[in-house]
Amino acid sequence: MEQNRILIFDTTLRDGEQSPGASLNVHEKVEIAHQLAKLKVDVIEAGFPVSSPAQFEAVKRIAEEVDAIIAGLSRASEKDIKAAADALVSAPRKRIHTFSSTSDYHILGKFGHPRYGATLEEKRKTIIQMSHDAVAYAKTFTDDVEFSAEDAGRTDIGYLAEVIETAIAAGATTVNIPDTTGYTLPFEYGKKIAELKKRVSNIDKAIISVHCHNDLGLAVANSIAAIENGARQVECTINGIGERAGNASLEELVMALNVRKDLLNYFTKINTQEIFNTSKMVSAFTGMMVQRNKAIVGENAFAHESGIHQDGVLKSRETYEIMTPESVGINTNKIVLGRHSGRHGLKVRLEQLGYKIKEEELQHVYDAFTELADKKKEVFDDDLRMLMGDEIQKRDETYELTYLQIHAGTNSIPNAVVRIKTNERVFEEAATGDGPVDAVFNAIERALNIKSELESYQVRSVTSGRQALGEVLVRIRSGERSFTGRGISTDIIEASAKSYLSALNQKVLHLKETQIISENEKVSEVI
Amino acid sequence: MEQNRILIFDTTLRDGEQSPGASLNVHEKVEIAHQLAKLKVDVIEAGFPVSSPAQFEAVKRIAEEVDAIIAGLSRASEKDIKAAADALVSAPRKRIHTFSSTSDYHILGKFGHPRYGATLEEKRKTIIQMSHDAVAYAKTFTDDVEFSAEDAGRTDIGYLAEVIETAIAAGATTVNIPDTTGYTLPFEYGKKIAELKKRVSNIDKAIISVHCHNDLGLAVANSIAAIENGARQVECTINGIGERAGNASLEELVMALNVRKDLLNYFTKINTQEIFNTSKMVSAFTGMMVQRNKAIVGENAFAHESGIHQDGVLKSRETYEIMTPESVGINTNKIVLGRHSGRHGLKVRLEQLGYKIKEEELQHVYDAFTELADKKKEVFDDDLRMLMGDEIQKRDETYELTYLQIHAGTNSIPNAVVRIKTNERVFEEAATGDGPVDAVFNAIERALNIKSELESYQVRSVTSGRQALGEVLVRIRSGERSFTGRGISTDIIEASAKSYLSALNQKVLHLKETQIISENEKVSEVI
Repeated sequence: MEQNRILIFDTTLRDGEQSPGASLNVHEKVEIAHQLAKLKVDVIEAGFPVSSPAQFEAVKRIAEEVDAIIAGLSRASEKDIKAAADALVSAPRKRIHTFSSTSDYHILGKFGHPRYGATLEEKRKTIIQMSHDAVAYAKTFTDDVEFSAEDAGRTDIGYLAEVIETAIAAGATTVNIPDTTGYTLPFEYGKKIAELKKRVSNIDKAIISVHCHNDLGLAVANSIAAIENGARQVECTINGIGERAGNASLEELVMALNVRKDLLNYFTKINTQEIFNTSKMVSAFTGMMVQRNKAIVGENAFAHESGIHQDGVLKSRETYEIMTPESVGINTNKIVLGRHSGRHGLKVRLEQLGYKIKEEELQHVYDAFTELADKKKEVFDDDLRMLMGDEIQKRDETYELTYLQIHAGTNSIPNAVVRIKTNERVFEEAATGDGPVDAVFNAIERALNIKSELESYQVRSVTSGRQALGEVLVRIRSGERSFTGRGISTDIIEASAKSYLSALNQKVLHLKETQIISENEKVSEVI
Repeated sequence: MEQNRILIFDTTLRDGEQSPGASLNVHEKVEIAHQLAKLKVDVIEAGFPVSSPAQFEAVKRIAEEVDAIIAGLSRASEKDIKAAADALVSAPRKRIHTFSSTSDYHILGKFGHPRYGATLEEKRKTIIQMSHDAVAYAKTFTDDVEFSAEDAGRTDIGYLAEVIETAIAAGATTVNIPDTTGYTLPFEYGKKIAELKKRVSNIDKAIISVHCHNDLGLAVANSIAAIENGARQVECTINGIGERAGNASLEELVMALNVRKDLLNYFTKINTQEIFNTSKMVSAFTGMMVQRNKAIVGENAFAHESGIHQDGVLKSRETYEIMTPESVGINTNKIVLGRHSGRHGLKVRLEQLGYKIKEEELQHVYDAFTELADKKKEVFDDDLRMLMGDEIQKRDETYELTYLQIHAGTNSIPNAVVRIKTNERVFEEAATGDGPVDAVFNAIERALNIKSELESYQVRSVTSGRQALGEVLVRIRSGERSFTGRGISTDIIEASAKSYLSALNQKVLHLKETQIISENEKVSEVI
């Protein structure tokens, strides 16, 4: 590999998807993976195969279909590694990513049981042995093995060097030094990478990777400091989503390297013009909204373009602009479709927006498009993105809303009537509520004889124009899990009803699967 | 001042309020300023007095009421400085903040006119003279004068040193080195500060300040690098709002200094336990939503607390937690009010949440509270925050919704009836639409005989529980300006109607004012 090439390891589908509130179904993951390949990320971490059949299936489908190095996560155990290897079996380029905990906090917290050793010193030895064995076992399935030292940011440098040296000796070709808790400062983290280069005798045999969390707002700066000290792979996510405050944001890191190549003499293979499309798709599918003041992809990031300007900006964009919106794929010439746009025009535009669409699905999408074009004269990119989000979620539909009627106002009791269809039967009910949305939810619950804990209700960005499409996201909780449903309509109440049913559909889908890991092994927060 | 003390200069009300979509009325600004004083920021930049009568009035009110150093912004012109001095006249501790552009980009872009000189060299000399004169003039009103070199991040170090030396010689007690376009990298920016300390002979007579924008996601890291090289004031905003991708986020910077005091031997006077309240208030008043994965104040920032945990987290919080939610004022023991909570209990809780409430306003708020408590058994902090947001906006009410009726569904044409009251008369109308919200907006427009360009429609965080309060934000555009209205209700359609009227009320308020600066001097993007 060229000396100054930085590999981009995208973990949107693994760490990003672990964000509370951001669950993706298999279809959505595959769609995002295709878009990540178009963005030209080097590695796609597609999931954590052992953790559930849905995770396994998603990694498997992505391994079969998507052109990139596909990685699957596993703890340092044979069962995990075997599951990852099985899921990745058809990938032309596959990576097994295994990890152990190395900080004292993690060792004492997660390896407290005496079976790992009586003292910290003994536990540390156990972990070194486990790490070695895990890498060696992973190596029997693929040459491309990555090892991560969880919470390396808070791990003492001497022990960390020992673990890393062992992993490389066992065959790891990438060694990742995660700042799992987002604790480090740039100079401190940079120094840690430099020290490892000094202390680990076989460090030249592996690529050093970093994985930074953003708890103190320093994830991108830490990643850059690491690059300057020898890291050549950066793990990051679209829109910076991930556990807690998320991960280093791919778009910020890549654009910092691009904009400041005068001082940062490194390059990535990212096609930056796909950044905006990818950001929109991830935000639409995960339901993780991007704040207006988010760098690069927030609504205001280039807002002097359209807002009130100072004289200076009008005369020269460079006065306040260090990069152009076009460089990240924000199209200032909006392409608008309408009712006269044909199937082919629609298909081409959807492909430009990053959606892979099969011929047999096109008719469905086209029907939804013409229905919308009848209501809205102008169909914008954001409308199409919403339609696609809706279509993709519909693939797992158990309950379908076929009729809705609501009545509400200041001096009346809000009430709703619904009709819901499944393959087997039809349900009809009426109910009152504190508002029309509450009335609709009550009617649905009464019809289906269920009661859900409503965790969140959001109306997401509405598209442009008066007859805008609104998208409602509903999150319901069921035991330890939440399910997010999505509904779109020009009628916000109808969108609400659809989104509630969609959340129920997600729940049904989940119940069809069985957990293959035992209860006390349940994992959600890793690395 | 102690050697390691870092002054926090909050510019939420100036740079933050310049974010497209984030406009605040005078009442909201005063309320936020009080909360900033409670947070114990050292300096509150309250606005840009010359730019509009509303800005002037807000700075004046804050200067009269709020206990902190109050700063007013001004370009390097007598008229601007005089307006700032007038607005600040009653502040016991006042600061005039004046600025010039210093980068070649800005000089050529904004000082292109030959009256500033024929060549870049001549223009640079003019700017030095203007900066000197501005500081000297400001000095006639107050000893506390801050000078900023706009776009210092892209300004050549030799010229920058010259400008700064001149400003200090003219009497500036704080010199600010803004990275206006968010262009610099931490090591580069840190070096710039170090160089200034070397090159500027009188640098010991002033405090070095930094003001970083977040276009590449590096604002907090840049601020820290500057501190390590001698800066002792940091300009920042709550939630990191501000022009484009915003400013360094106060909460991230302060918590990075706190959490890493082992390596960063500096301190601020910030009462970190007020961070969460302040963040919530700013987000509610500006309508600038905070994304879930935002560091420190995002919904997920401490989400392992309530989500699915790994064994480790259950055993020890430190496994994944580098600070506690309590340290930033996130109260895990939720205090819930109900219909039996009295006026006094309500008042105490509101004060704990940061709201100053006058005795004569309490009855109003209490009425709204009891009305809500009748619908919702449990009234949470977020409900109270919404109520207060609503009350504060209502102080400028021209149009009031007194009746609403809607009817919608899958096989019917959505329709709405509204009655709107002003001081003089009552309007009633009906209309259809593509959904109930559209129908309501159409009915309002028909009733008032207006037509607005709807810029955005958002339903913001809904509070907890089934009978949740929903808050709708509507932004309408009128010429060069946008107006944001807010409405709350347990009925989303009613909230929509209220928010549209509230946006109209903001517009009326604005029209009552007259611009006091001429058209070609209109300013919005500064520093």
